[in-house]
Amino acid sequence: MEDAGLRTWVDEMGNVHGRVEGANANTEALLIGSHMDTVIDAGKFDGALGIVSAISALKVMHVNGNLQNLRRPVEVIAFCDEEGVRFQTTFLGSGAIAGILSATTLEIPDKKNVTIKDVLKENSIEATEESLLKLKYDPKSVWGYVELHIEQGPVLEQVGFPLGVVKGIAGQTRLKVTVKGSQGHAGTVPMSMRQDPMVAAAEQIVLMESLCKHPEEYLSYGGHCSDSSTKSLSSSLVCTVGEISTWPSASNVIPGQVTYTVDIRAIDDLGREAVIYDLSNRIYQICDKRSVSCLIEHKHDAGAVICDSELSSQLKSAAYSALKRMEDDIQDEVPILMSGAGHDAMAMSRLTKVAMLFVRCRGGISHSPQEDVLDNDIWAAGLATLSFLENL
Amino acid sequence: MEDAGLRTWVDEMGNVHGRVEGANANTEALLIGSHMDTVIDAGKFDGALGIVSAISALKVMHVNGNLQNLRRPVEVIAFCDEEGVRFQTTFLGSGAIAGILSATTLEIPDKKNVTIKDVLKENSIEATEESLLKLKYDPKSVWGYVELHIEQGPVLEQVGFPLGVVKGIAGQTRLKVTVKGSQGHAGTVPMSMRQDPMVAAAEQIVLMESLCKHPEEYLSYGGHCSDSSTKSLSSSLVCTVGEISTWPSASNVIPGQVTYTVDIRAIDDLGREAVIYDLSNRIYQICDKRSVSCLIEHKHDAGAVICDSELSSQLKSAAYSALKRMEDDIQDEVPILMSGAGHDAMAMSRLTKVAMLFVRCRGGISHSPQEDVLDNDIWAAGLATLSFLENL
Repeated sequence: MEDAGLRTWVDEMGNVHGRVEGANANTEALLIGSHMDTVIDAGKFDGALGIVSAISALKVMHVNGNLQNLRRPVEVIAFCDEEGVRFQTTFLGSGAIAGILSATTLEIPDKKNVTIKDVLKENSIEATEESLLKLKYDPKSVWGYVELHIEQGPVLEQVGFPLGVVKGIAGQTRLKVTVKGSQGHAGTVPMSMRQDPMVAAAEQIVLMESLCKHPEEYLSYGGHCSDSSTKSLSSSLVCTVGEISTWPSASNVIPGQVTYTVDIRAIDDLGREAVIYDLSNRIYQICDKRSVSCLIEHKHDAGAVICDSELSSQLKSAAYSALKRMEDDIQDEVPILMSGAGHDAMAMSRLTKVAMLFVRCRGGISHSPQEDVLDNDIWAAGLATLSFLENL
Repeated sequence: MEDAGLRTWVDEMGNVHGRVEGANANTEALLIGSHMDTVIDAGKFDGALGIVSAISALKVMHVNGNLQNLRRPVEVIAFCDEEGVRFQTTFLGSGAIAGILSATTLEIPDKKNVTIKDVLKENSIEATEESLLKLKYDPKSVWGYVELHIEQGPVLEQVGFPLGVVKGIAGQTRLKVTVKGSQGHAGTVPMSMRQDPMVAAAEQIVLMESLCKHPEEYLSYGGHCSDSSTKSLSSSLVCTVGEISTWPSASNVIPGQVTYTVDIRAIDDLGREAVIYDLSNRIYQICDKRSVSCLIEHKHDAGAVICDSELSSQLKSAAYSALKRMEDDIQDEVPILMSGAGHDAMAMSRLTKVAMLFVRCRGGISHSPQEDVLDNDIWAAGLATLSFLENL
């Protein structure tokens, strides 16, 4: 950041900031950035690409002597913890800037009972409840937030385009489903006398997939729903069972209990709620039919975020001109797509208008060491950021 | 055992023996017993009940001065390791007596790489490949093997009877199914572009249950099968998924891989093989349809054992007279049932004819601290053993 001519500091949550005031120090600032943490066993682009693109673009302007021509202050923020790996809570960095963290956040412990406060202290940051609250930016001082991020999905690769503009970030609900049945010996309990939570869970997971692939066949929204809203729901709705476990987990024991997670996302909040309502009812029905018991816990709920249309259209123009600069014959429009993944922009939307640019990733793979971005697409990302900043 | 007037020793596998020669020391001996090991977090009857019943019955005869009237030698054996918890291999004790262990058995390691040989040595037993082979009993010296065991299932409780005679022990196959798909971010991969091994596994598990509940609707046995054999198959067939895991196992990641176990048992070996053939084909079909890959490994295969009809009928008479002694108005016949669980009798059937008596267990629960047998039924078990020995 300093190499790019930015004034830098680390705040009391561990976010790293680099700022240049430009030609009009008293106008609202553009915030631009992404997160510097990763998931375990992750690739190298998730988060870092957005930070590096912003710094690189500003460095080009610095080298060319254009930093002071920026029409408004620009502040790059490298957020400290977006993934929530250690403390099981996401958006620690952007949440602090947006002022949406609860006062007790510093007391959240990791698995070894070391709190966020402890960790900050180990890193020479004496954070208090008060200093945490002071991290919130004044909305009046901020113009907007822009984030560039690896897509983490296969859509841009499928349409054959390096960059895409994000129309919105899906809302997300995370459920934990616990099915309790009757534990027994795998050899001695006749099929007809079983209350097997494993087969109940399997039936529920098959149903979940079918419902999420074809919500229009399941949901009536109580008769209040138009065709177009179910169509828009089915185009963005995704449902995933990522974790499942049995207890006691032995090959020769009918499980007494099965627990699994369901991750449900959609750009349409009402639609997502309708899906969860319907899915929950059907999960309970399956449990009733099989004489097992079900508990459905909501572990996480976040509403969808719609990106700002003006900022998005500026990003779209910047992406187009970057691609034009690299290759003359750009035929197609820059694609508009949804983000199914959560991003710091979700937290920042509580403070200011937001927009996002996605960069194509190879094979749609992310959260994996195989995560990859073509060199050319990295160039495109940097050039698009530069074009956006030059035309602020 | 010594208290019951038996001559005792520990053999080189760690089995504990107690023997009395009776009136005809040169005739073939009755072997009677069960195992003294348990599963982790187990109840107290599984195994021990069969050993204690035999010793108790012999002690009554000893106290009454009747031991020397036994018509043939009787040897109680407390087998050292039936469950296979530590070395992941069952029937170590009875397998040694039956002579069915492989020569390399002593080299089998536990999870900490301590071998069976090491463990025996720690317990002052210097076992060698040669001494292991010498443990095998001469079939000519043995008349038969009888085992009393907790049912570990709900059938006797359902029919309301304390004891039941076992007609046979189901054959068992244990499969490990690995489904590999395309790992991805739970938010970013549209439903239509997924190759999700979790939903494939769920569909397979639902199918497995349906096939095992109603094999007659799935199997044709290549047209060679009579109605009666499918009926007998469906009455004994049980299928269980006891373990399942996803990789990398995170709620926000579409798994790249799912692994689960399938335990399949039936009294009819051909029927079991037909089920496995059909199930495997359908598992592969589901994988093909979903563009994921499947691997089905056979981890264990054991044929069914049919109990000796003469020995069984002696056990049935003994059970009846024991119940008659406790309560005058026994109306019903002693039930005949299948054992879905494996027992030392399976190994011993390779040496001699076998028979088994089951004792009712509360709620069909076993392999659990809640495992329980009514005091009255413990009495019935002891009295039936006594009656059987008195009428040898």
